[in-house]
Amino acid sequence: MSVPLARLIRQMLLMVLLVLGCSVIPCNAALAQADPLPSWNDGAAKEAIVGFVARVTKQGTADFVPPAERIATFDNDGTLWTEQPFYFQLAFALDRVKAMAPDHPDWKTRQPFKALLEKDTSALAASGEKGLLQIMAATHAGMTTDAFASAVRDWLATARHPRFNRPYDSLVYQPMLELLAYLRANGFKTFVVSGGGIEFMRPWMERVYGVPPEQVVGSSGVVKFQIGAGGKPDLMKEAKIEFIDDGPGKPVGINRFIGRRPIFAFGNSDGDLQMLQWTVAGAGARFAGIVHHTDGIREYAYDRQSRIGKLDKALDAAAAGGWTVVDMKQDWKTVFPPLATSGAAMEAKP
Amino acid sequence: MSVPLARLIRQMLLMVLLVLGCSVIPCNAALAQADPLPSWNDGAAKEAIVGFVARVTKQGTADFVPPAERIATFDNDGTLWTEQPFYFQLAFALDRVKAMAPDHPDWKTRQPFKALLEKDTSALAASGEKGLLQIMAATHAGMTTDAFASAVRDWLATARHPRFNRPYDSLVYQPMLELLAYLRANGFKTFVVSGGGIEFMRPWMERVYGVPPEQVVGSSGVVKFQIGAGGKPDLMKEAKIEFIDDGPGKPVGINRFIGRRPIFAFGNSDGDLQMLQWTVAGAGARFAGIVHHTDGIREYAYDRQSRIGKLDKALDAAAAGGWTVVDMKQDWKTVFPPLATSGAAMEAKP
Repeated sequence: MSVPLARLIRQMLLMVLLVLGCSVIPCNAALAQADPLPSWNDGAAKEAIVGFVARVTKQGTADFVPPAERIATFDNDGTLWTEQPFYFQLAFALDRVKAMAPDHPDWKTRQPFKALLEKDTSALAASGEKGLLQIMAATHAGMTTDAFASAVRDWLATARHPRFNRPYDSLVYQPMLELLAYLRANGFKTFVVSGGGIEFMRPWMERVYGVPPEQVVGSSGVVKFQIGAGGKPDLMKEAKIEFIDDGPGKPVGINRFIGRRPIFAFGNSDGDLQMLQWTVAGAGARFAGIVHHTDGIREYAYDRQSRIGKLDKALDAAAAGGWTVVDMKQDWKTVFPPLATSGAAMEAKP
Repeated sequence: MSVPLARLIRQMLLMVLLVLGCSVIPCNAALAQADPLPSWNDGAAKEAIVGFVARVTKQGTADFVPPAERIATFDNDGTLWTEQPFYFQLAFALDRVKAMAPDHPDWKTRQPFKALLEKDTSALAASGEKGLLQIMAATHAGMTTDAFASAVRDWLATARHPRFNRPYDSLVYQPMLELLAYLRANGFKTFVVSGGGIEFMRPWMERVYGVPPEQVVGSSGVVKFQIGAGGKPDLMKEAKIEFIDDGPGKPVGINRFIGRRPIFAFGNSDGDLQMLQWTVAGAGARFAGIVHHTDGIREYAYDRQSRIGKLDKALDAAAAGGWTVVDMKQDWKTVFPPLATSGAAMEAKP
């Protein structure tokens, strides 16, 4: 009991300081006016978000949801960070093939690696899904989970996006960072539920989104426990797919990892349709949101005809179900955070 | 920003009341003496726990661990609740066969159901693992996840343990409930990592242990998303095993669901060996604990020769590695909570 008391006293001191501070400047007024979503333009999308949060957090009303049940799930590619001109995880895999090539002399003559190293796009395309799986197996397996996490961190620290010439983890959406923080400030627990690889996402999402590893749900490969060199236990990544957290896999992944139905979900493509359907089918107040990529100048413009991130059925479902569609061009004041404050400056708030 | 401020002010008022209260009675002294683990006898086990928590929570020391990394994992059967005379989930399955029998007239003549309904233990034993899997398939599949959760809750509300004549979820270990709460009060995030079925555990662990569904890791069957009757999305449980969270599966499950290595882990059988090995193999201060069932009077006494919950290799590893072995008879003042306060009275503290 003495430890909680010490914490209580520390917190109390802090709060007294805060309130004293408020008596000097007109704090209440300032705070009442402060906008928790400053990068969002006023409009239907922002109103829907703020209105929903107000409804479910107001005690004693029919829509009130206890904090433990305030589960919010977010797709990642195209919802929290950019997914063009190709999924960033694929860029990682391709860069990794180049980096690993000196240790694999056979790749010079072996497809699909030869095509990749020679930038022979038609031969690469010809290798199809089988080729892609071979590339993923070569770059995502045969090492420990710790070694893979290091490889992801090293790549993020050095690789640059071909169009924006910025680190990939700085191409996150500032309005969505604000939304994550706003939900957490209102007692929500924020989860990422992505088709991307779970081991690819966890090494950086706590730093960038404030979402800790245990709140990241994704696709996964088989991992095996082994007693390695010197009697040290290891977890080895194998070249075998275990779970695809996409489409109908998303509600399954949510059930498996979270075990509770979200009351709030955000996606941007048809791969998010079932997650959004599953979310709104629950009893009580529910929120379903879609990021619509309409801004070819500041980001990319795509939906129904897109090669990746196709938005067709989900857009129809949104119209039918009254879901919130965020028009990136209209609804967002800024798209990316200023470079200096992205990445390391986003402190983790689990 | 106005919502957090309102919360700050509410909390501050509460704390002022607390501190005012303290000025009337000699609170500091009382709290300094208060024991966070009152059901634990003084001894090596309790000292090891309290000493470890003090070390990793003291800022500015080499052993300090930031709160986000204070992951604690607990086995369930035999570590947090009783596992004798058989795993409680098996008791649930058997009761369920009896309850479902009227809707399955063929079970009267079909093994292993016939044996079960006739309490023909030798025929039941003869059906072996295949029979057990048939029983599990019949009782744990072919329904939605929501319907299954209701079945678990109904069973807990009515079934009684054959020896203690108490609800199964009241046969939890009072000293371990205190340990879970003590760790959480010190910034730990507590997880259950059990060989038991994840869908069997989640409906009650938040109420009983204060562990929310998203912090429960377990074995699972395949679950499929479907658009059911009336266009309603459903998650259907299928009769197919997906993941066994036991033995070498435990570090794999921890990696998959939590994505961080625990710094503190507790088990009670050889099925926990790899979880404990994985935990202590990490850098920095680590704690591995084993509940040793030595109390045949108040609970059960078993280990090396046990039919279930075998404790052989883990006990050897504990001796070799200096892990903490809790002697139930010696170390625990009480085993089970008083009946009136168990269950509903244990409020969830995620």
